[in-house]
Amino acid sequence: MRLRNVKGARTIIENSTYVLKNYEEYKGKFKMIFNNDNPIHVEIGMGKGDFIIGMAKKYPSINFIGIEKYDSVIVRAIEKINEEIPNLKLIRMDADKISEVFNKEIETVYLNFSDPWPKNRHENRRLTSLNFLKKYDNIFKKNKTIIMKTDNRKLFEFSIIQFSNYDYKIDSISLDLYKDNIKDNVSTEYEKKFNSLGFPIYKVIVKK
Amino acid sequence: MRLRNVKGARTIIENSTYVLKNYEEYKGKFKMIFNNDNPIHVEIGMGKGDFIIGMAKKYPSINFIGIEKYDSVIVRAIEKINEEIPNLKLIRMDADKISEVFNKEIETVYLNFSDPWPKNRHENRRLTSLNFLKKYDNIFKKNKTIIMKTDNRKLFEFSIIQFSNYDYKIDSISLDLYKDNIKDNVSTEYEKKFNSLGFPIYKVIVKK
Repeated sequence: MRLRNVKGARTIIENSTYVLKNYEEYKGKFKMIFNNDNPIHVEIGMGKGDFIIGMAKKYPSINFIGIEKYDSVIVRAIEKINEEIPNLKLIRMDADKISEVFNKEIETVYLNFSDPWPKNRHENRRLTSLNFLKKYDNIFKKNKTIIMKTDNRKLFEFSIIQFSNYDYKIDSISLDLYKDNIKDNVSTEYEKKFNSLGFPIYKVIVKK
Repeated sequence: MRLRNVKGARTIIENSTYVLKNYEEYKGKFKMIFNNDNPIHVEIGMGKGDFIIGMAKKYPSINFIGIEKYDSVIVRAIEKINEEIPNLKLIRMDADKISEVFNKEIETVYLNFSDPWPKNRHENRRLTSLNFLKKYDNIFKKNKTIIMKTDNRKLFEFSIIQFSNYDYKIDSISLDLYKDNIKDNVSTEYEKKFNSLGFPIYKVIVKK
């Protein structure tokens, strides 16, 4: 994603009640933040937040946590929240640290239009690499569900192989999402753009 | 495939040394036919034979058996063989009977552009349905390899889910074969046609 320096971003983030600051303190007890026992879903790399905000509004009985590394991006998500969404929190952190933040409490991980890191030597940085699949093992409650969307064919092919060889079962798959029945689909910023350019959007749900 | 009545097809098949007539007698001992211990690969639904003939010429140390149901199609394959190919045999039979014909002697199954049987009630007829995956268990020697190509998105999506849930691991996958490096690819009649029309060709290799 192209990053711009957003003036005052740090202040907006500091003042937002949606952004969890002391998130390290909640490891294993994130449900305390939501004050209920509803399932917790996480989007890793939420970008400007269209997806996670849309999901939180659509599914009020699921708690959503959006994770994003960059100030300048997370601030765009905060600006989009124009009503109270009690089942939504955001964390500014590097995905690499995810297993230090959550402990056996997440039911679903969303990976939307993740950075493909096309060079072989960066394979471990891809969010569906073995490196990351191992980290996710620690954050999932019991049953593991990963829901991935991307327009990047090579990343999708790589991910399918990684999931399969890490014993995830493929529950559903679409190789051209917008040609299927997608009335329940919540789209991301990227997704709208790439679909409008005529590229196929790939989606897979895997479970373990 | 559109079938035409080919005049004299039955006679051509009867006289061809490539077509095994008494194939039921060779169950568990097909290697006798080839008179060697080389691996045996089978294409189920070989159509007009471009793929299996091309493969047999390209890989002389693998034995290839092409299976096809229709006289009028198998005869087209016979007509294409214009040199001696000792590692090739053809069988006119229904795929449904496959586990009655082979017994723990096949190393690889090829499924190229199989009939998608799009209606839900015909699911069991698809060559990647659970119905067929169970049959293949009996024909594979030890390690199981299925190599599938198709232009049919829905069949491919269905197949990936079936493979995954029947504990096959996805070894490699391409969602647009002709955009990848495919110097070793042997194409089928369908494949050439669909690729020339600009449709993506899907390919997957699964192992168990």
